[in-house]
Amino acid sequence: MKIAITGKGGVGKTTLASILAHLYAEEGKNVIAVDADPDANLASALGIPQDEAEKIKPIAEMADLIEERTGAKPGSLGGTFRLNPRVDDIPEGIGYRMNRILLLTMGKVKGAASGCYCPENVLLRSLLRHLIVKRSEVVIVDMEAGIEHFTRGTADSVDAFIVVVEPGQRSIQTARTVFEMAKNLGVQKVFVVANKVRGPEDNKFIQEHISGPIIGSIAFSHAIMEADMKGASPCSYSGETVNEVRDIKIKIEMSLNPVQ
Amino acid sequence: MKIAITGKGGVGKTTLASILAHLYAEEGKNVIAVDADPDANLASALGIPQDEAEKIKPIAEMADLIEERTGAKPGSLGGTFRLNPRVDDIPEGIGYRMNRILLLTMGKVKGAASGCYCPENVLLRSLLRHLIVKRSEVVIVDMEAGIEHFTRGTADSVDAFIVVVEPGQRSIQTARTVFEMAKNLGVQKVFVVANKVRGPEDNKFIQEHISGPIIGSIAFSHAIMEADMKGASPCSYSGETVNEVRDIKIKIEMSLNPVQ
Repeated sequence: MKIAITGKGGVGKTTLASILAHLYAEEGKNVIAVDADPDANLASALGIPQDEAEKIKPIAEMADLIEERTGAKPGSLGGTFRLNPRVDDIPEGIGYRMNRILLLTMGKVKGAASGCYCPENVLLRSLLRHLIVKRSEVVIVDMEAGIEHFTRGTADSVDAFIVVVEPGQRSIQTARTVFEMAKNLGVQKVFVVANKVRGPEDNKFIQEHISGPIIGSIAFSHAIMEADMKGASPCSYSGETVNEVRDIKIKIEMSLNPVQ
Repeated sequence: MKIAITGKGGVGKTTLASILAHLYAEEGKNVIAVDADPDANLASALGIPQDEAEKIKPIAEMADLIEERTGAKPGSLGGTFRLNPRVDDIPEGIGYRMNRILLLTMGKVKGAASGCYCPENVLLRSLLRHLIVKRSEVVIVDMEAGIEHFTRGTADSVDAFIVVVEPGQRSIQTARTVFEMAKNLGVQKVFVVANKVRGPEDNKFIQEHISGPIIGSIAFSHAIMEADMKGASPCSYSGETVNEVRDIKIKIEMSLNPVQ
């Protein structure tokens, strides 16, 4: 199972990603959780203690690794470097392991030469492709508000694109952009999850503004805010939210493998 | 007055930016409101009707303009183009005017050659520099979670960098990254605004986790969510929030121009 989660900043992508990772791990599956949003902090949402989380070095900042694999120093532009660097040994080598969950933190490509064809981005994109296309583990990618990081070849292998929305025009606008991008990438279906829902009116609002079905809905929860304040996993703070996500997980699986 | 607002996605940067823009306009000042966050929607937060807002073409997507000004087509890389394109006539020419507020929507640079030295980014950066350094209007920039778009020369001319945080580790983590970036840019002071505060405990939490003073605090408000649902300006939905922002505005001005 390969899941990519997107949506406007602050809608709860990381919360959803972390709970899904724990749910798959509880089932005995090996999970690779990918923090591909420089503005997120999947480590703390997974429940990795703050002092440990701070030690995790994002891959985009591993200059030696990037140079070793691509043949070019980060920040270089225009030179020649390998567009298909070896990446298959990276996850175990540098990920942070937490029982059955392996966390990979992509980080942000910085500096003057941060184009799509800079060494850092080539490595990150190759790695994402490897994770989605080649790995047998469950892979959950916590993304930015957009799916630009996917090439057509990688997007094909994602089982479920999830876009998270909250009751508000702005996250719905982002969702519409994601639908458009997904279409351009040849993605057939995007699952919508409604978050921070305060009651039936909020669900109705989202339903009215989103074309296509909403696969599930997560209630507004002070406990989730508490978890973020404690730097703890939402799993240990809100059983209700976990149950809602479990329901979403089941519905996605049923939608992908309908009973014959 | 030149104000740049940053912080984690979803913390309320756009809400703050839109209210500040209206407050300055009410004072009779001309305001340029810059939507520099591809994940935001400052147009609707300013109260521009949805059908109008949808017609606003982001500058990054104006291929003809970019080519005319830089001498290179968007998406080109490695060719020669002007690094100091003319931009002084852009705001009035293509911005969306709403009484005293002129909205500029930057948009997102897409595609293969989206490096810092691609024509689109050169134009956007030149424009941002022009707005901050040369214009006499009040300029309010709604930014992404970071201040990478600023060069040292531009950052020097920003009067107030505001980072918005909410009660949670993750937005505080983003704020810390912003502090670090600001320091590297030579920015002396970053103002912190606490948002979505549910009570004294939340303020205390933020205070404990942020080094340096918090200039103001905005209460958690269902009315602000309602405004987003209606695609309306928060100004017309929550007088309480407007008052809180007015208080923040005064404190920032006092801090910049202390009484002798």
